[in-house]
Amino acid sequence: MSVSDPALSRQGASLPRATPIFRAPVPLMTEGGIALSPLEVAYQTYGTLNAQKSNAVLICHALTGDQYVASSNPVTGRPGWWPTMVGPGRPIDTDRFFVICSNVIGGCMGSSGPASLNEGTGQPYGLDFPVLTIADMVNAQAMLVDHLGIDSLFCVAGGSMGGMQVLQWAARFPARVFAAMPIATGARHSAQNIAFHEVGRQAVMADPDWQGGRYLVTGTRPAKGLGVARMAAHITYLSENALQSKFGRKLQNRDARTFSFDADFQIESYLRYQGESFVERFDANSYLYLTRAMDYFDLAADHGGSLSQAFQGSQTRFCVVSFTSDWLFPTAESRSIIHALNAGGASVSFVEIDSDKGHDAFLLDVPDLFATTGGFINAAAKARGLGVKP
Amino acid sequence: MSVSDPALSRQGASLPRATPIFRAPVPLMTEGGIALSPLEVAYQTYGTLNAQKSNAVLICHALTGDQYVASSNPVTGRPGWWPTMVGPGRPIDTDRFFVICSNVIGGCMGSSGPASLNEGTGQPYGLDFPVLTIADMVNAQAMLVDHLGIDSLFCVAGGSMGGMQVLQWAARFPARVFAAMPIATGARHSAQNIAFHEVGRQAVMADPDWQGGRYLVTGTRPAKGLGVARMAAHITYLSENALQSKFGRKLQNRDARTFSFDADFQIESYLRYQGESFVERFDANSYLYLTRAMDYFDLAADHGGSLSQAFQGSQTRFCVVSFTSDWLFPTAESRSIIHALNAGGASVSFVEIDSDKGHDAFLLDVPDLFATTGGFINAAAKARGLGVKP
Repeated sequence: MSVSDPALSRQGASLPRATPIFRAPVPLMTEGGIALSPLEVAYQTYGTLNAQKSNAVLICHALTGDQYVASSNPVTGRPGWWPTMVGPGRPIDTDRFFVICSNVIGGCMGSSGPASLNEGTGQPYGLDFPVLTIADMVNAQAMLVDHLGIDSLFCVAGGSMGGMQVLQWAARFPARVFAAMPIATGARHSAQNIAFHEVGRQAVMADPDWQGGRYLVTGTRPAKGLGVARMAAHITYLSENALQSKFGRKLQNRDARTFSFDADFQIESYLRYQGESFVERFDANSYLYLTRAMDYFDLAADHGGSLSQAFQGSQTRFCVVSFTSDWLFPTAESRSIIHALNAGGASVSFVEIDSDKGHDAFLLDVPDLFATTGGFINAAAKARGLGVKP
Repeated sequence: MSVSDPALSRQGASLPRATPIFRAPVPLMTEGGIALSPLEVAYQTYGTLNAQKSNAVLICHALTGDQYVASSNPVTGRPGWWPTMVGPGRPIDTDRFFVICSNVIGGCMGSSGPASLNEGTGQPYGLDFPVLTIADMVNAQAMLVDHLGIDSLFCVAGGSMGGMQVLQWAARFPARVFAAMPIATGARHSAQNIAFHEVGRQAVMADPDWQGGRYLVTGTRPAKGLGVARMAAHITYLSENALQSKFGRKLQNRDARTFSFDADFQIESYLRYQGESFVERFDANSYLYLTRAMDYFDLAADHGGSLSQAFQGSQTRFCVVSFTSDWLFPTAESRSIIHALNAGGASVSFVEIDSDKGHDAFLLDVPDLFATTGGFINAAAKARGLGVKP
């Protein structure tokens, strides 16, 4: 195996020592029926666990996120991905709470994934890695939470794919989740969302450098295919209005059209940059696996076709948030969750936040999001006996 | 030059003799400043031109359409693409009107395009073909209409990219357009639409078989890249509701998820089929050129930044149609056209049709579309002295 590209050798051992990695004592039995072993979960923590172990908050990251929710990623150098929500004085206040964030399994920032070493072959798994589900990710997180000695999480929070994990946590481990914040998400992936994911996967697989997923062995990555996948996905993270107001038909560093296929328009240049920078930090096979896990997510189907059954008798407090201009997970998806929670008798508050920032609004500086989630967290902390915010 | 693939040798000479091709007597000077010569325009006609030459209707096709608006395409075997709108007894009644439809230049069904022979090199143009605009397409059509001896068209009609040509006709040749029907279109391409086109182009160009556009010389086409481009574009032609109601999360010929990257979901299988079948009938370079022409379209910018200026004093009667679920050319785009037409003092009727079929609604069996356009055409025919429909 020749791995000279630093971006290829990020897995496990190459992560800085500061990144703890939990090695599960037993294999993970996946929903697909494969025993995954060894199972490794890379994670970060922030703040201090109290004596009662009652102030732990689990943050679940989205498709291209990682465990570095509130600190810079030592591999990519990128800042923490949710600085507006998690940190000292933030709605999820690391001065009050013990925050855990782990890289999802199937990912590429230290947790077991398709780039991990398959001990059976001595090679990276590639497509021999088992296809995972959101439930598999959550089961692995539960093993990590066990390992940390935490019985009940004060809160589980996340947006997009992270929100799917929040819902899965609440459905699978209701007694272990005091409060849940699923943001900009859905209880199942829609046909249109599956369609966009399939375009991305086909773009990766169309790249001859993908080599049936064996590119880590040869050392040549499917950068072009993954870049195209990212470009297509990126459009779905923004709103048409945001694109129009930010870019419109503005030209990129030129006064007139060039009558060529250069990036004449700013939006073209921006998208190309998004594609190019993404391939520097993300593994193509992980992209296949994580999009597949999202496509497979259907919480109602897992509960006899009834979403309310997933939350029947739940004691968890829910705060569901959607954004008006999010067309990847439109408010209708959150309403379905609300209806099911109400039917299941759960405690729920719901806010649709007016924003033109599209799906990405959950990651951005949106004051209404902080007011909503901050208020919810404070009320829940009080109910949990964690005191009120000073 | 080795062109053994029949799909590659469709251009010009290989089209059945039934397809007339107009060879312009003079070069076409493109907006980009290139003299295109020879200029060939492949076209079809239906019905009979009356003695006054007052009953001619020009149909402008969309991105992946062709001149076979009301008859089957002899190359692909596909039926005419607008059978609901054009034909005997249809809103654009070939028993009353002389219908002309030409393949746009830059296209790949017989008109001059990137697959045409570059007489300067003896090779197909590839990327040496000049980058075109919607105005260039319309100027070529005007030369064809001249050739047919028609001074004034009774109506110019089309949807999507075809609608852009309609608007361009009305702005450039107001005296030659008695009535105009721009459907499901816009007076400029939005940032989001440019973004989706750029994804498609990058998918084509990422395919090593594209070979910088020289694939016709080597005989190996960028089928995978063009397939991915088509898949991404196809999503934008449908509505989320239509995708959800038609496909939802239904599985494709299987009872359970396979935990693989097979096309488990019907929507995946459908999209893959759309991609695969498209590459059999469409030229990858044409896809680049036509998407670029759409991106470059901005009728207001061509008129000092004022769209109303484009239609100032126009005597043309307009019928503008949009569809509620069309998110590629949402109703707001049509409203901009309406406002400009009103400001320009033009005669205009506007209908937003309630449909869940997305952008593709204009091609489908939508009775409200036929009622609207049929009524408009009949009134215009009466005003033109063409009599009333029997």
